[in-house]
Amino acid sequence: MSDALPRETALLDDLGDWRRTHSCGQLTKAAIGQTVTLMGWAQYRRDHGGLIFIDLRDRKGLTQVVFSPDDAPAAHDKAHDLRVEYVLAITGLVRARPEGMVNPNMATGEIEVVVSDFKLLNTAATPAFPIEDRTDAAESLRLKYRYLDLRRPKLAANFLARHKASMSVRRYLDALGFLEVETPILTKSTPEGARDFLVPSRVNQGSFYALPQSPQLFKQMLMMSGMDRYYQIVRCFRDEDLRADRQPEFTQIDIEMSFVDEAQVMEMAEGMVMGIFRDAAGVELPSPFPRMTYATAIADYGLDKPDIRFDLKLKDVTHVVRESGFRVFAKAELVKGLRVPGGGELSRKEIDDLTEYVKIYGAQGLAWIKIKPGEWQSPFAKFLSEAERDGLARELSLEEGDIVFFQAGPADMVNTALGYLRLKLGERFNLIPEGAYAPVWITDFPLFEYDPEAKRFVARHHPFTSAAPGHLDILENEPEKALARAYDLVLNGYEIGGGSIRIHTPEAQRRMFAALGLDEAETSEKFGFFLRALEHGTPPHGGIAFGLDRIIMLLCGSKSIRDVIAFPKTQKAACLLTDAPNTVAPGQLRELGIKTRKKEE
Amino acid sequence: MSDALPRETALLDDLGDWRRTHSCGQLTKAAIGQTVTLMGWAQYRRDHGGLIFIDLRDRKGLTQVVFSPDDAPAAHDKAHDLRVEYVLAITGLVRARPEGMVNPNMATGEIEVVVSDFKLLNTAATPAFPIEDRTDAAESLRLKYRYLDLRRPKLAANFLARHKASMSVRRYLDALGFLEVETPILTKSTPEGARDFLVPSRVNQGSFYALPQSPQLFKQMLMMSGMDRYYQIVRCFRDEDLRADRQPEFTQIDIEMSFVDEAQVMEMAEGMVMGIFRDAAGVELPSPFPRMTYATAIADYGLDKPDIRFDLKLKDVTHVVRESGFRVFAKAELVKGLRVPGGGELSRKEIDDLTEYVKIYGAQGLAWIKIKPGEWQSPFAKFLSEAERDGLARELSLEEGDIVFFQAGPADMVNTALGYLRLKLGERFNLIPEGAYAPVWITDFPLFEYDPEAKRFVARHHPFTSAAPGHLDILENEPEKALARAYDLVLNGYEIGGGSIRIHTPEAQRRMFAALGLDEAETSEKFGFFLRALEHGTPPHGGIAFGLDRIIMLLCGSKSIRDVIAFPKTQKAACLLTDAPNTVAPGQLRELGIKTRKKEE
Repeated sequence: MSDALPRETALLDDLGDWRRTHSCGQLTKAAIGQTVTLMGWAQYRRDHGGLIFIDLRDRKGLTQVVFSPDDAPAAHDKAHDLRVEYVLAITGLVRARPEGMVNPNMATGEIEVVVSDFKLLNTAATPAFPIEDRTDAAESLRLKYRYLDLRRPKLAANFLARHKASMSVRRYLDALGFLEVETPILTKSTPEGARDFLVPSRVNQGSFYALPQSPQLFKQMLMMSGMDRYYQIVRCFRDEDLRADRQPEFTQIDIEMSFVDEAQVMEMAEGMVMGIFRDAAGVELPSPFPRMTYATAIADYGLDKPDIRFDLKLKDVTHVVRESGFRVFAKAELVKGLRVPGGGELSRKEIDDLTEYVKIYGAQGLAWIKIKPGEWQSPFAKFLSEAERDGLARELSLEEGDIVFFQAGPADMVNTALGYLRLKLGERFNLIPEGAYAPVWITDFPLFEYDPEAKRFVARHHPFTSAAPGHLDILENEPEKALARAYDLVLNGYEIGGGSIRIHTPEAQRRMFAALGLDEAETSEKFGFFLRALEHGTPPHGGIAFGLDRIIMLLCGSKSIRDVIAFPKTQKAACLLTDAPNTVAPGQLRELGIKTRKKEE
Repeated sequence: MSDALPRETALLDDLGDWRRTHSCGQLTKAAIGQTVTLMGWAQYRRDHGGLIFIDLRDRKGLTQVVFSPDDAPAAHDKAHDLRVEYVLAITGLVRARPEGMVNPNMATGEIEVVVSDFKLLNTAATPAFPIEDRTDAAESLRLKYRYLDLRRPKLAANFLARHKASMSVRRYLDALGFLEVETPILTKSTPEGARDFLVPSRVNQGSFYALPQSPQLFKQMLMMSGMDRYYQIVRCFRDEDLRADRQPEFTQIDIEMSFVDEAQVMEMAEGMVMGIFRDAAGVELPSPFPRMTYATAIADYGLDKPDIRFDLKLKDVTHVVRESGFRVFAKAELVKGLRVPGGGELSRKEIDDLTEYVKIYGAQGLAWIKIKPGEWQSPFAKFLSEAERDGLARELSLEEGDIVFFQAGPADMVNTALGYLRLKLGERFNLIPEGAYAPVWITDFPLFEYDPEAKRFVARHHPFTSAAPGHLDILENEPEKALARAYDLVLNGYEIGGGSIRIHTPEAQRRMFAALGLDEAETSEKFGFFLRALEHGTPPHGGIAFGLDRIIMLLCGSKSIRDVIAFPKTQKAACLLTDAPNTVAPGQLRELGIKTRKKEE
């Protein structure tokens, strides 16, 4: 293409009297003979046989428009200056494409528009990368020019799906009598595990607001307010070190209901999630969702978010090798095996890579046996007695051609390492059916988990989760045995939602805080207002929250959560488009009564 | 009522197998003979003729339930312990109320439920104020116990209306092809006049995020991204000193469209606002909304947000009194009169009060004339010549029994003072029809206004607003004459929304920044990313934003915006319920690289 038009040409080009009649994805053979006006971006330009062809793009699609020296010489003449990403309004006649020029891969592939007149609405600098679905541009460049990135049809489609998902949720919950209620963003620090973002107060200098990690206490107080059924699609904030799929701000579908038990919350949520997939992706999830206890998930899959799209279960073989001459097995708290049918084909290199992989999860190494004709190939099988071999073969249903992996040691490590190894092997052996979605409810969670750093029990979900019936009474003496009235929804190995029936009496709440090691003073300072609220006639209530970003990511088949957030931040929590965060004027800080700390302080 | 049950009784009362069958607002004569289960709060209790009557309340209404010693002696016996705001589940038979006991003011007034069994779900401390629509509890007490306040049916109804309004907006915009897209809350300081809330960054110490005053630049960048039609019901933040109807965080219906002009945005918005009032309040707004230029609004009503529910227009009489012996008039930039038909009945005391009132708006005093039979009663009429009297009588159409008020001086002061005086008089003389809604579009705004403090012109809407066709060329030389492609929607004297067609070329945007006094360095530091975006093929676009809180306030007939926000803050920006903002642990600040400034610093 030629050089850009002098910019002045475009200086004041506004719409004038031009009005769009159709989108660029709309015209089919039915429109042949109509005069239409389209507006959009020049995606491609081809000069061919004296004609100029431009694919005009908008959110809905592409339409081929033709500038012809015979039909409209002035327009054709001006069109020589058009370049990619210029913004145009064109008007012209819809006609059938000539024989052999029909493009069956394009919604508008049967027609083209012969331009009678056009208006240049804006020019464009050469884009930093081409506006195409397949891009090898670095993500940092794509984030800097996010407005170009978002023009790519694949990425744009994610936001249409996201819109449809949100709308589906709103329609569904509205029909069930839920009220959308907005809760504050400038609020009080609620210690729910993660670090808070703080906002210095100018009016009350020395004081800070916190951005909410979730509206947990507010939604519970809405139940105390008699609101009965609440929902909100709401921004939440966590100042954590970011992993690949985390953002400092994220969006939650937040739901709370009064006078319900677990079954009612789960039934409601199941319908909502099915609606999301139906409305936003045309996918019918298998219903009803299966349910699995936490204990079963850990026993069979090693993880509390099992990917049940494929089988391949872990097997506890501790009892088989309890007396083994192989000391690693004999002295271990837990020994588990993971049999991979046909896994004998794995190369030594692959096994070495898997060994490195499980070390991420705390494993020291990775024991394995290949079941060969007439022999067990293994670095350690020689330490096993005949009886142990028989026991393993029986327990693990070993067959020729299999490989079986083992982990031995503390139960948490064994389960985690084999659980993630299982996922890796599922990919390696193509065990995951294309396009499959496998939701599963996980129930009967432990109420607490032991925090080795803090040397105390902490709430596994949060401190507002009800104990299972009767389990409040074992809080003090056997906290590790107490179960929670909590439930997670897991999809394809991702936890997409979680919730619980809440504590609804101040006495139970106080016992919970005490079990978590909060003393009277702390309890009263942090949660005094909430305990007071609980005293004023709180209905039994429960709820659930879903991670919208992650749901959309799964639904769109995206690999990264950044592909479903319009203006995401990097792993360093920066926005490459706007350069946030940035330094501010000293006067702004002075007004807030704060100053930055020098490095040495 | 008797003393509360010992709390232990309620310690673990959860729902068990109880399931609600109906709401407390649902049962009518049609349900007579059915066995139902209701859950809710004990609103009243009356003991009468050996029976115990309780009005059970939930979000949907009240149902009278009866505990009878004959029908269910055990339940009747336990019911003696029930107190107000206790939470109950009851089951029983619906029956017609006895002759004479029917309550026609209550949706369920024809029936009652005879309790066969009940479950106490929670006790309640004595509420700090009664849960009734009419309350004289101080607002500070109501905010501290917000969960009690929100149980009052009138307040609860506001949140049902708010939900319906949001849902109406979403349904309307979804049908028109708008996508709900979420924009960041942790973003870069965008200088739009007000003070930003800042969030210190832990990862990039010394840097700060700002909370958005509006998603203005993001929504424009979504248009550059080809999103075409965007909306969001979004939280915005302004760290301003709070007036009665302002909150540090507020909610905006934020809308942007590509390839449109003013008329298209206004038409879309009009349908949306009509839908809100129809769906949330059952009100059909008069359509189409009238349009008025800014100049007419100021001329006739003195304010750019005219309350056109009543007539009573201002009249420019400068030319009549230009040569007057009354120096206050003769030397004034502007003299305007406001004639009040029948206003002669105002007492001296009332006139004195009005005089004090206009001083709020910068007036020195308030000149007036009462038109009495055969004479003008007035402190200053003696300074007027016969010709001036004739001129005023003619221009103002004065009649016996009228009062006419005058302001003379700088145009801004005259218009503002008389504009607000007009509103006061509209109330005093009952000129505002009950339940009337009078929307009006204000158009042709000035692009700039002069800021006497900064001694320069500032953007009246914001610096991204397009100049009227041709007016870009008078920016530099006659900025006070430049008009904007901006529009406000005013309802009953409140600005409920405003928007504009945006600048869509970098050249025009640079000229605008320059006209506002930003130099190259400032422009580039603050808006470099945005100017770069504008260079990459920006479509013509425009939008509008509505203040949702204010719309709901008007629609609910509430006096305060705090009545339509679930957890509002006080004028000191504090949350009395949670005690936010509060002090935080020194370690939290250290991690963020900030410290609080000592008083003397």
